[in-house]
Amino acid sequence: MGEELGLFEAIYNCRAMRRLKSDPVPEDVLIKLIDAANQAPTGSNAQGARWIVVRDQAQKEKLAALNKTAVAAYAAPASGRAAALAHQAADKRARMLAAVLWQAEHLHEVPALVIACYQFDRPVGGGMAQAAGGGSIWPAVQNLLLAARALGLGAAPTTLGLANRQAAREVLGLPDNVEAFCLIPVGYPLGKFGPVTRLPVAQTVRWDRWQ
Amino acid sequence: MGEELGLFEAIYNCRAMRRLKSDPVPEDVLIKLIDAANQAPTGSNAQGARWIVVRDQAQKEKLAALNKTAVAAYAAPASGRAAALAHQAADKRARMLAAVLWQAEHLHEVPALVIACYQFDRPVGGGMAQAAGGGSIWPAVQNLLLAARALGLGAAPTTLGLANRQAAREVLGLPDNVEAFCLIPVGYPLGKFGPVTRLPVAQTVRWDRWQ
Repeated sequence: MGEELGLFEAIYNCRAMRRLKSDPVPEDVLIKLIDAANQAPTGSNAQGARWIVVRDQAQKEKLAALNKTAVAAYAAPASGRAAALAHQAADKRARMLAAVLWQAEHLHEVPALVIACYQFDRPVGGGMAQAAGGGSIWPAVQNLLLAARALGLGAAPTTLGLANRQAAREVLGLPDNVEAFCLIPVGYPLGKFGPVTRLPVAQTVRWDRWQ
Repeated sequence: MGEELGLFEAIYNCRAMRRLKSDPVPEDVLIKLIDAANQAPTGSNAQGARWIVVRDQAQKEKLAALNKTAVAAYAAPASGRAAALAHQAADKRARMLAAVLWQAEHLHEVPALVIACYQFDRPVGGGMAQAAGGGSIWPAVQNLLLAARALGLGAAPTTLGLANRQAAREVLGLPDNVEAFCLIPVGYPLGKFGPVTRLPVAQTVRWDRWQ
């Protein structure tokens, strides 16, 4: 790796990389990503973050099929998805959608699909689990994305592949007390890393109260 | 700052810092934290992460009062809170609780209370909002914690101060389409930064499917 990537450099250059090579990622590198992820905080330090790393071809194909169905609905004109946003012009948004569609066609070829899960101490229903566990798994996902960036790997979380919750649970063999939050395809990028583009900070901050 | 802190160094040394000095944090430093936070991904790139930075004394006292009530319930013997966990012995867990109690006594003295919010494009009910928005705000919270660590600031998110949702919404003046996710006290730490202690990674990973 040479010198370690700086924190702010990683944060400001962590684009969603969706077009990935099929070249395998060494197992110790995948473990390094997940260990970095696990350093994030969890509510009451419960440390229930759990990870399923899917490399098996048949399993990848099942998840890719679920993802393809959800992406087709997301991409459909009637989906309610905005074609442009105040902060993202239509051409850029179209490029993002093209990358999502590329990924849907190639998901089964990505070397590792990492499923971010949270294990509760008792069974919790889906919506409740998403609300209760979010603060204890998504910070870890961000650590994983930053670590991937630092190690030259592309990664971008998606919830579409898990949108059919029951089907995804069956594919992954999840027990009742485990909830899956997102699917993170991980591989070496076909494209180049680059800076992210975000709203000017002043548009996102208020002082003391909203209104 | 001198040399930039490395990404992995930040990730592995980002303890929850709860005992904070009352010394003010410069506004440009607070803005730097939030700008770093905003670089995290959001679902469909909606970029709805919003931040209320509370420095006003009266506002801080209102939030501190809400937090104190919630912490008292959390700390009560009958709360269901585990006194020890497989991965956290009783003495360490007692030290964590002591820090939570210290923070509850001093929250109004912390220089800045950052409230992480998400603005939806339409009103969404609380539980639904927590489920739908979690993946778009908690990654940003993690960026903020890492940036704070790199800038020598202590920070640790808590949801207790917002547990009385309606009261917190009123204090913060939130419109119907904005949900608050956590409160992050930010200040210069009284104690020392140090490595975090987490589960061995092997206990958190499975290959291809859960079971």
